[in-house]
Amino acid sequence: MSQHKVIYDTDPGVDDAMALVFQALHGDIELLGITSVFGNATVETTTRNACYLAARFAPGVPVARGAQAPLKRTAPEPLGWIHGDDGLGNLGVSATLDGEARAALDARPAHRFIVDTVRAYPGEVTLIAVGPLTNLALALAEDPQVATLVKQVVVMGGAFGTDGIHGNVTPAAEANMLGDPDAADIVFGASWPVAIVGLDVTQKTIMTTDYLAAIRDRGGEAGRFVWDVSRHYEDFHRASAELDGIYVHDSSAVAYVLAPHLYTTRSGPVRALTEGIAVGHTVQKPVSLTVPAPDWDDRPSCTVCVGVDTEAMLALYERTLCEGA
Amino acid sequence: MSQHKVIYDTDPGVDDAMALVFQALHGDIELLGITSVFGNATVETTTRNACYLAARFAPGVPVARGAQAPLKRTAPEPLGWIHGDDGLGNLGVSATLDGEARAALDARPAHRFIVDTVRAYPGEVTLIAVGPLTNLALALAEDPQVATLVKQVVVMGGAFGTDGIHGNVTPAAEANMLGDPDAADIVFGASWPVAIVGLDVTQKTIMTTDYLAAIRDRGGEAGRFVWDVSRHYEDFHRASAELDGIYVHDSSAVAYVLAPHLYTTRSGPVRALTEGIAVGHTVQKPVSLTVPAPDWDDRPSCTVCVGVDTEAMLALYERTLCEGA
Repeated sequence: MSQHKVIYDTDPGVDDAMALVFQALHGDIELLGITSVFGNATVETTTRNACYLAARFAPGVPVARGAQAPLKRTAPEPLGWIHGDDGLGNLGVSATLDGEARAALDARPAHRFIVDTVRAYPGEVTLIAVGPLTNLALALAEDPQVATLVKQVVVMGGAFGTDGIHGNVTPAAEANMLGDPDAADIVFGASWPVAIVGLDVTQKTIMTTDYLAAIRDRGGEAGRFVWDVSRHYEDFHRASAELDGIYVHDSSAVAYVLAPHLYTTRSGPVRALTEGIAVGHTVQKPVSLTVPAPDWDDRPSCTVCVGVDTEAMLALYERTLCEGA
Repeated sequence: MSQHKVIYDTDPGVDDAMALVFQALHGDIELLGITSVFGNATVETTTRNACYLAARFAPGVPVARGAQAPLKRTAPEPLGWIHGDDGLGNLGVSATLDGEARAALDARPAHRFIVDTVRAYPGEVTLIAVGPLTNLALALAEDPQVATLVKQVVVMGGAFGTDGIHGNVTPAAEANMLGDPDAADIVFGASWPVAIVGLDVTQKTIMTTDYLAAIRDRGGEAGRFVWDVSRHYEDFHRASAELDGIYVHDSSAVAYVLAPHLYTTRSGPVRALTEGIAVGHTVQKPVSLTVPAPDWDDRPSCTVCVGVDTEAMLALYERTLCEGA
């Protein structure tokens, strides 16, 4: 029996796709559904991509379409220069698989799918959320009790300053937080257990070109896909960060679910700033800080990842792709 | 000839006093004046303390009284539980030295003193600012050209997240930044060279009880004063941070002036947030971050300290107190 029943809330997105393959191939995860959201691309594109990925790597897993825009703002521009115009590294998914993909789409909106699924397995469902957190906030709005019925929420998003990293799309904000800061602040304030894997650890974890080539050569169809889908993404990393490889954002959230002992963490309530020049910035009040802080003190503690055993994380992904796990 | 002509802008304050002794005893620093500001205590108290410290450790150095409140807000509550009700560890300065102290007070307000002194030594003056930055912002408002005439501004304030430290008075703010965030944002945006020594390095640098006892035993009158003035302050550190010693905040700014090679730094424009729950938070756009950021990109680069050779810094302070330097 799988240890983790998972709903994967995602905006694929290249690293989203790599994280989906990771979940689909790991025996400890049972994917109950995939919910799409705007972010790396429009929700039309991310939904199409989610359907494509499900059909190819997780057949039978339902896909539910989610929010097309943040709670209170207009949707950000798609990140085509990072993820490709099709959101999947310009692989040309659109032309080949639209028909097949559409067949898998659930009739419910993502937030309703989340509520129904969580209620069907009370206390058992892990939400892995790697895009803007709009769907999760909408689920809470529709059914606040859902917070008490979820096993845990693992978010890829934000940045907490270890090594001085605070953002990637602004000096103060990571893309998923800037995508919907209001939703993020709601999700971090709800009474479900939240763990956050931010840029602090995802930018420490790097899949080099050689690492990806080994996955291509040893990982069968999934390995070849991981290589193909990451070519454009790697070019972006080379140009923007002089990196001979790619940061491991979304798969880090999956790794945290599978092997939380690989991450060092810090506890304390977290706020996402919803206004001003640092909108989308995430600020934790660590338990070690004893001053009163009314804007934090009435909120539940979150678990924030501040360190990672990168070698073990990368070995876990490689093992899953190349040997099954 | 002294290498550094310094105006010391300060809100003494225990660590302010320890940093004043450091400057007064180090041969590479010529103190041109001391300007007071509200912060650790009311400006009445910090001015009285500045006069006391000047009379005792820097005789002949003028003291100018500065701002009693931030540019746009009401003054914060004095930090009596940290610095003592008298701002100097409850040493009882008030009762013994008011008469002597008052004699030293310059007739000009601090910001005018700064402007006049900088203009008297164009290109030569270092401003060491270890309180709220109100006086510096007022000097810029009165005479914007002063920014081009100052050698450098070295600020103790803010926090940039190394080791996950973002604030001490709130989860997002260091005390000097929260004291006057509007002034801080003005000072960081002016065209003078600014170096910032924040909690990232000052909380890494710790004077233990044993270290302070050695200074007491070997540092003559100044050493005994450093011990006496820090007893209440050490109690605060023990209670709030379980620290057997004290953080070295303000003296770190002095050490940066004397020995900048002891600090590792990062360049890039800095904003202080002036609104919202993270008011007073400092956010740098590091040069390594290549995304456009209009709220940062039109501002001059600041030098932010992110690391320190703590042993060498502590040795420099001890050598200065115990052997002269």
